[in-house]
Amino acid sequence: MPVFEAHVPAGRYTTQQKRALADALNQSLVQGLGVPEGDRFIMITEHGDAELFLHPTFMGMDRSDDAMFITVFVGAHRPLDDKQTLAAHISRLATEALGISPDDIFITLVPVPNDNFSFGRGELQLAEVAPRW
Amino acid sequence: MPVFEAHVPAGRYTTQQKRALADALNQSLVQGLGVPEGDRFIMITEHGDAELFLHPTFMGMDRSDDAMFITVFVGAHRPLDDKQTLAAHISRLATEALGISPDDIFITLVPVPNDNFSFGRGELQLAEVAPRW
Amino acid sequence: MPVFEAHVPAGRYTTQQKRALADALNQSLVQGLGVPEGDRFIMITEHGDAELFLHPTFMGMDRSDDAMFITVFVGAHRPLDDKQTLAAHISRLATEALGISPDDIFITLVPVPNDNFSFGRGELQLAEVAPRW
Repeated sequence: MPVFEAHVPAGRYTTQQKRALADALNQSLVQGLGVPEGDRFIMITEHGDAELFLHPTFMGMDRSDDAMFITVFVGAHRPLDDKQTLAAHISRLATEALGISPDDIFITLVPVPNDNFSFGRGELQLAEVAPRW
Repeated sequence: MPVFEAHVPAGRYTTQQKRALADALNQSLVQGLGVPEGDRFIMITEHGDAELFLHPTFMGMDRSDDAMFITVFVGAHRPLDDKQTLAAHISRLATEALGISPDDIFITLVPVPNDNFSFGRGELQLAEVAPRW
Repeated sequence: MPVFEAHVPAGRYTTQQKRALADALNQSLVQGLGVPEGDRFIMITEHGDAELFLHPTFMGMDRSDDAMFITVFVGAHRPLDDKQTLAAHISRLATEALGISPDDIFITLVPVPNDNFSFGRGELQLAEVAPRW
């Protein structure tokens, strides 16, 4: 149940590329963290002119007009090792899927306790259950 | 001050339904947690083609094209009991308001300390005050 | 690396005003917290009719049609003092930039450990490093 929000420049990516991005984000969980394939919960938001700002060089990157934010609501129980694995997989798979530079993906992992997710029906399905993924 | 973000399929819900959804989310606080009626802070975002992905069956649900994400920035002091109550109320009230299935509402409760909200004027009004709601 | 999301009423602010808002948010970090100028990572989202709800008076404010949400993903290590300083700077600088009332800015500071940010290349650049800012 990591849930993804990708914030991308408007008009820059095709519908096909957005689907490929969603696949890449899902696969970052599957390949990186051993999460089931069905765990595919993703939002993409387009931002128009003067609505998306990523500094071109801060922290030694070379960012372009392809640059995007990816925010992930991820289980708060994940140790640093899992978070590093996840970020590396997102970077590799998303850049391959879109043909963009790894400098163009900014990631924020927002920790959320497993208790706090409802997959439907108003129940918190993972409450009081040891994390499986 | 739980703050809501609903992410819905573009063109699927009318203006009237969006207002009804906002009312339902507000009432989930009022009826579920005893929060004042005036605590009504809600964003709705539409997502177009290839911008919203909720797996059709993961975790035993039967999701349709009505499916949406509801993200709630909720006081970090809330015990599990409050979170379960809130999720159950969101589910019931939003599905009633929109005439959709409870399987179509995915909820993420993001914990935020009460200290971290400003209702205006750049002040953190709830800092160093015991939570009332 | 506080990352900002501003949620504003559609069609209310010009492109020039959106740039001014981004500058104000960046300057709230620079002037308020001594963060480098290059730390400028901001998303703005427009919300149309029946997509943005801020109660007109809750908590003693007088909100207008200018009202907006500003969500900040901010280092979880920040003490209350830093959070108060940041909120006060956002309020002052954004209201000056846009010519709106301080009652019209609702702020949510979402705590995120420094470990959880990737500025690019799939690395968590601040992991296991003492916070500089």
